[in-house]
Amino acid sequence: MSDTEGDAPQSDQELGITESKEYATGDWYAEVVQKAELASYGPEGMSGFIVTRPRGYALWERLQGHLDAMFKETGVQNAYFPLFIPESYLEREKDIVEGFDPEVAWVEEAGTEELEERLAVRPTSESIINPYLSQWVRSHRDLPIRVNQWCSVVRWEATETKPFFRTKEFLWQEGHTAHETRDEAWEETLTRLDQYETLYEDVLALPVLRGQKPEHDKFPGADTTTTVETLMPDGKTVQGATSHYLGTSFAEAFDITYADEDEDQKLAHTASWGVSWRALGALIMTHSDEQGLVVPPTIAPEQVVIVPIWQADTKDEVLAYAEDVADALDEAGLRVELDDRDTRNPGFKYNEWELKGVPLRLEVGPAEVDDGEVTAVHRPDGESVTLDRETVVDETRAELDAVYAKLYAAAEDHMDGEIRDAESRDEILGTIGQHGGYVRAPWCGEEACESEIKDQIAAEIVLVPFPEEDDYHADGGDEDGECAVCGEPAERTAYYAKTY
Amino acid sequence: MSDTEGDAPQSDQELGITESKEYATGDWYAEVVQKAELASYGPEGMSGFIVTRPRGYALWERLQGHLDAMFKETGVQNAYFPLFIPESYLEREKDIVEGFDPEVAWVEEAGTEELEERLAVRPTSESIINPYLSQWVRSHRDLPIRVNQWCSVVRWEATETKPFFRTKEFLWQEGHTAHETRDEAWEETLTRLDQYETLYEDVLALPVLRGQKPEHDKFPGADTTTTVETLMPDGKTVQGATSHYLGTSFAEAFDITYADEDEDQKLAHTASWGVSWRALGALIMTHSDEQGLVVPPTIAPEQVVIVPIWQADTKDEVLAYAEDVADALDEAGLRVELDDRDTRNPGFKYNEWELKGVPLRLEVGPAEVDDGEVTAVHRPDGESVTLDRETVVDETRAELDAVYAKLYAAAEDHMDGEIRDAESRDEILGTIGQHGGYVRAPWCGEEACESEIKDQIAAEIVLVPFPEEDDYHADGGDEDGECAVCGEPAERTAYYAKTY
Repeated sequence: MSDTEGDAPQSDQELGITESKEYATGDWYAEVVQKAELASYGPEGMSGFIVTRPRGYALWERLQGHLDAMFKETGVQNAYFPLFIPESYLEREKDIVEGFDPEVAWVEEAGTEELEERLAVRPTSESIINPYLSQWVRSHRDLPIRVNQWCSVVRWEATETKPFFRTKEFLWQEGHTAHETRDEAWEETLTRLDQYETLYEDVLALPVLRGQKPEHDKFPGADTTTTVETLMPDGKTVQGATSHYLGTSFAEAFDITYADEDEDQKLAHTASWGVSWRALGALIMTHSDEQGLVVPPTIAPEQVVIVPIWQADTKDEVLAYAEDVADALDEAGLRVELDDRDTRNPGFKYNEWELKGVPLRLEVGPAEVDDGEVTAVHRPDGESVTLDRETVVDETRAELDAVYAKLYAAAEDHMDGEIRDAESRDEILGTIGQHGGYVRAPWCGEEACESEIKDQIAAEIVLVPFPEEDDYHADGGDEDGECAVCGEPAERTAYYAKTY
Repeated sequence: MSDTEGDAPQSDQELGITESKEYATGDWYAEVVQKAELASYGPEGMSGFIVTRPRGYALWERLQGHLDAMFKETGVQNAYFPLFIPESYLEREKDIVEGFDPEVAWVEEAGTEELEERLAVRPTSESIINPYLSQWVRSHRDLPIRVNQWCSVVRWEATETKPFFRTKEFLWQEGHTAHETRDEAWEETLTRLDQYETLYEDVLALPVLRGQKPEHDKFPGADTTTTVETLMPDGKTVQGATSHYLGTSFAEAFDITYADEDEDQKLAHTASWGVSWRALGALIMTHSDEQGLVVPPTIAPEQVVIVPIWQADTKDEVLAYAEDVADALDEAGLRVELDDRDTRNPGFKYNEWELKGVPLRLEVGPAEVDDGEVTAVHRPDGESVTLDRETVVDETRAELDAVYAKLYAAAEDHMDGEIRDAESRDEILGTIGQHGGYVRAPWCGEEACESEIKDQIAAEIVLVPFPEEDDYHADGGDEDGECAVCGEPAERTAYYAKTY
């Protein structure tokens, strides 16, 4: 779409999705994002940027609301750190990490000044947050400290833009915490991973696998990177969110120390964790279809749309009935829209609200009025259910739950069917090549074995189970086996997949 | 404060505010901001930036919560536009406005690229939002359209930093709307001004004056700029928020047109409106004192702190009683903190929570336990009230309301006493010179008359009443008079003041 093309649908035809989800997933996804009015592409000269339109931003706000509430219940405080980071601050991090230099946008001139030191537009905020944690933490009484910020970050990646999945500026949250001991920091890491899992499974209706990244693919400087992964319909995995136990490496680099109860100076153990709007990309891509957007009621801007169906002689009666139903649902706290436009026929309205992803449609015509009923239609599959007007609030809630369960079950069935085992290099290559999805295989732990797969089909090890859940790990089980690639003794189970 | 100095108070002495609010307002303000842990100064090399600490950000989140709810109830949708704006987009605005060029931070290099066109870090978003409104609006059915974003903006001002009042990066919201007619856009402008007034008066406990900016001080390109102004303790006014009716000038520049019911193409009328975290600056400066931060319960992170007072033999009993009270208040939805630290004595706790601005302290000792009572102490003035344990929830709510009323009344008394009339140039100069505050005087409407005052004492016309409320305006009243400065016939009432 060019930046001068209008987006508002003006006719039935413009409402339709024309691309195939199965055969042209990328094009179909881009079409859904635009026609459902979630996002527009950025201005000319700013490829890689998107404008998040109200219907897209509303999804982000609800995601934020759910996650932020979980954070606050567990001791997290929000804060706001500057957008810019002096180059020398970024450099300081280089002792431990590769850094984001090749992807950084730099400000060298501001106002009428040539700056003495150039400033990075934050690609992530470790290097500016940690020096402040160092200031704020003196004693064990100041720990744990948990700060989080909701903000945008900029990473100048050259790859093709995919709204929400890959953009040069993206919205995310980044949490940074410091603790007295390894155990506390590790518990923090897992608490956040659990919350991300809850976000995906209980809010976005997306099942996830959870585990660790292999050693060679950890966040730079981290002791352990944990991840939740979810599978897209085209068989590629999305890294849904990561939570890192950073050991004491960042505390060393940034001098985050505290006086313990005996007044001895100790290094803090730190953790960091984040999720970006890529979660919305996974949401949209998984549930939507060739009628447009599909989202679960947990996060939908409107949960219910009521479409009244009238002739001239029944209009007043039907509309009054529909309004009563709308009021009842609204009072019960449901997000309901009554589409009483005169200028559109019911068929157009069905199409438009299907495109926009409203989970449940309630149809009200003269027959429903006569029978004291309401016809409910599930967005994902068009299943139709008759509700009793008297109990319409409770029944609507039940239907919304049913829609949620249906979306989750479909995603779960898909994922469960796409985890396959392999015992040889050729089997890994062949299985991913043919089916996509995850291939589970015993692994010696060497990056070289992953490289052999990566070089051939661009699949990589996206996850290894936690040691205690890994049959091939000394702590997890007694399974003996051989690395599927090199034949050396297996030390972990590896999940290979292609990635977004 | 240097960026390596710690902030956490370690002793009674460090808790104290050492500067005088009356005699060193600026230093006192900076000390309150830091010791109450609201903000720290930015890193070396980034003067003009601040780090908003959790206790400061919590104030902003509550302000956002209140205002965003008002916006959403009145048809506003949030969105998110890119952080960067291509230079050519900013240029496009130059037809109508001076622009922010001298204050812009520029990105010319990103990743490994030298950019073809340099990108501005947004100083405000008119120039990127309006082109999208132009795309999204085709028909009268698409109007009104109201988008708002909560974001940070960067303006490279060279003046001295004052946290929240004046920083190179600041948080704000900017709303941009388009309408069919002048009347609708003007109504929008006033709706937002009303909401800002509500924010100040009902949430921040700050009385405001409302009106317009003089013609020569309007937002560039605007037809009318409306404002709410609030008076600081040192007699300077703060522009609290502005709401602009932009006429059709922006619609012309950015081609925001719509087909009306007859399919005729019409120019939209637009409005924009915003408030920044300067509102927090006004809040902090007005209410706080030489014991530290004072904020009203509407916006306080903790509304109530309970300090138990025990000896070894009464500890269990006192603590159990205090916990019961805390639970009761918490269950009633109040934000309550029980300070049960063993390591601090009650006096230290009083000082610390006074510094941090908790509006109401509840003291519980053996006497309170015996009598089934709780002692409540108002933060602003130390007034002490005995509450009955049986009705502690309702009585606490009443005391919080009393604290709010007390703060508002004090600010209102101050402002009311600082509005003085003048009838001559010398009287304007003398009155502001001696007292500060607002001076109200008949005005001919010419900028030259303001300049005479401005040149002498750096006071300016910060507000003129709306025409219908202005005795000197043809539409407002029949008052005849002469401009206090030049003696020509008065056409408006001018409020002169020094400004933040």
